[in-house]
Amino acid sequence: MTPEPSPARRSARSHRAILDATFELAVRNGYPKLTIEAIAAAAGVGKPTIYRWWPSKGALALESINERMGTATDFPDTGDVVADLAGQIDNVVRLFNSDVGAVYRGVIAEAQGDPKVAAAVRETITEPRTRQCRARLDRAVAAGQLRADIPARLMVEQLYAPVYYRFLLGTEPLDGFDARATVERVLDGLRPRH
Amino acid sequence: MTPEPSPARRSARSHRAILDATFELAVRNGYPKLTIEAIAAAAGVGKPTIYRWWPSKGALALESINERMGTATDFPDTGDVVADLAGQIDNVVRLFNSDVGAVYRGVIAEAQGDPKVAAAVRETITEPRTRQCRARLDRAVAAGQLRADIPARLMVEQLYAPVYYRFLLGTEPLDGFDARATVERVLDGLRPRH
Repeated sequence: MTPEPSPARRSARSHRAILDATFELAVRNGYPKLTIEAIAAAAGVGKPTIYRWWPSKGALALESINERMGTATDFPDTGDVVADLAGQIDNVVRLFNSDVGAVYRGVIAEAQGDPKVAAAVRETITEPRTRQCRARLDRAVAAGQLRADIPARLMVEQLYAPVYYRFLLGTEPLDGFDARATVERVLDGLRPRH
Repeated sequence: MTPEPSPARRSARSHRAILDATFELAVRNGYPKLTIEAIAAAAGVGKPTIYRWWPSKGALALESINERMGTATDFPDTGDVVADLAGQIDNVVRLFNSDVGAVYRGVIAEAQGDPKVAAAVRETITEPRTRQCRARLDRAVAAGQLRADIPARLMVEQLYAPVYYRFLLGTEPLDGFDARATVERVLDGLRPRH
């Protein structure tokens, strides 16, 4: 006889089903057409269950994106700051060009008219990675590879802004982005002056 | 006795009234709520008149933004490339922080799900200014102030991406953007190597 699943296990299954349904429906129909009703139906839960865990479809979509980014956006530290950053940015570009990017683009569009979604984008996606990137840059500063008088947050802005610029404005193809050359040019302007 | 306005003059008046109504309604109600119906009513014209001149509300809003940018986004040439670019970027930041920026933000959001609007953003706003900026950078290259082996379009990307990054992601306050320091850091990475 199969034992009844415990409430905690049922809850974990629902949580998982909601996140999976969110991502799948956002990819299939486009983020603007995603609704909490459709997610609830696909995940086999009630809407109140979803709202108990997430305040909005934006927050839910961001969590589903974030878990799919996984460790691909972590920052290695081989001592070679150009190679470490370029490798990480290559991973970001690959993600932006995938289904993850398609959903993320929809959430960023919604964020332009909804400050709560905009805050969720920063809290879930950009800020944790900015902190990680700053830690990597701080070590490069400590190693004498970068100027100590430039706030690391401004270095992060210079490194990631070109990726977002192409992603959101389509000025150039994102898959033609040369992360290594860009990181080299940006960091060349941030070297200590002798 | 007042003469009847000529058809050409009536047409010019309608054109003007449509553009003004577009911008005013987009600012008042927010770009997402802007409709061709409401513009037609406010401008005292029929919808077919609007569609004869503009393919979409996005194209119309972009023209109303573009004319309000006026000469503020032109590139001076005083010989000092840092000062010239920083002054222009200061003007861009000021525009992005104004009603013009509020409407532009709405159009960029719409562009994320509409390739025609995305193309109109590039054709109306970014490409003409990118061409102007490239011309200014080309003169700095010719004057030996910048590297000749970096495509000017990549220099433009590095210069303007941080402004759009703050504007669209809100990672830092846009009005705290130090255009001069940013241009200096970016161009320091683009100097000829001796």
